[in-house]
Amino acid sequence: MKELEDRIRSDGVVIDNEILKVDSFINHQIDTALVRRICAYLIEPFKNVEKVVTIETSGIAFAVIAAELLGDVPVVFAKKSKSKIVDSANVYTANVKSFTRGVVSPITIDKRFLKKGERVLIVDDFMAEGNASLGLVELCQQAGAQVVGVGVAVEKSFQGGHAKLNAMGIPVRSGADVAGFDHGKVIFVDENAPRL
Amino acid sequence: MKELEDRIRSDGVVIDNEILKVDSFINHQIDTALVRRICAYLIEPFKNVEKVVTIETSGIAFAVIAAELLGDVPVVFAKKSKSKIVDSANVYTANVKSFTRGVVSPITIDKRFLKKGERVLIVDDFMAEGNASLGLVELCQQAGAQVVGVGVAVEKSFQGGHAKLNAMGIPVRSGADVAGFDHGKVIFVDENAPRL
Repeated sequence: MKELEDRIRSDGVVIDNEILKVDSFINHQIDTALVRRICAYLIEPFKNVEKVVTIETSGIAFAVIAAELLGDVPVVFAKKSKSKIVDSANVYTANVKSFTRGVVSPITIDKRFLKKGERVLIVDDFMAEGNASLGLVELCQQAGAQVVGVGVAVEKSFQGGHAKLNAMGIPVRSGADVAGFDHGKVIFVDENAPRL
Repeated sequence: MKELEDRIRSDGVVIDNEILKVDSFINHQIDTALVRRICAYLIEPFKNVEKVVTIETSGIAFAVIAAELLGDVPVVFAKKSKSKIVDSANVYTANVKSFTRGVVSPITIDKRFLKKGERVLIVDDFMAEGNASLGLVELCQQAGAQVVGVGVAVEKSFQGGHAKLNAMGIPVRSGADVAGFDHGKVIFVDENAPRL
């Protein structure tokens, strides 16, 4: 999505030729008009979505706006549990490894909010190794819900998340796919190549 | 706001005649159409808002939709810092006491995202003692931004947050004001009384 790539080039901050910060428009300050255009792009291929699922915190803005564009389907955000021990009587739970911090933590969704057969679109702001998305897929599978796809604003497909989801039969759509960095400049996977 | 009060009566869960859970439509599963109608009500009295400020996590859905309705002004969400020590060179920081857990934790906003003179509306899902909102006001004051008001979906004004903000000259608007509980039933402050 050219607009997002251009915005990342102009307002993204690359640290140590390795980390991309997009906190001025995506995950600390949020440009809602841009997010709406990104979400319109992300949801486009997915039909009959009944629920949008994301994970706290920065996925929520994208999930909410995607849900509005899908005709106000419900949003559910998974919670990152502070406790290692989760009472699994009332919640679905999966363990997710944090890419930035390396630790494994449980994420949970209340069993009331995922239903068997429900067509779920997973939406998030960012994906690299795909650990958060894979955790959300696991929660949906526990409920018997059907994940129709994953939409993320920015991905780094070279870190493997995209391929792992595809291998499970789950299509991934992203607004921008970062291939790497060159002297502090962001290089994108060819924007004209089909990513879905 | 009658619709929200009715929804709380039908779908809210009262625990131990003391705690109100609204996680099926506000802060775990989110009904975006309802949130949009609540936000339209919350923003109505506030003019020339230039930014919506909230705090992670469950305030984000309301802040984003309020910002859309205000003509896509930017949203900024304060982060709850995991560390007691915050590098205050780059961020505004305030200490906030958690009502549910009792602990005091710093919240932060990057200094790039609050500007002197900026007209800020604070939006959140819930307010009781008002600690989170007061912390956000403090961050805005550090930046020299002007808080034009606070809009919250559900408040318990009897716990004092509303009055503290009013005493600072900051008007508060809420979608529902919980006065207490009676045998597990939610009692609202008279919905016809002006709350702003």
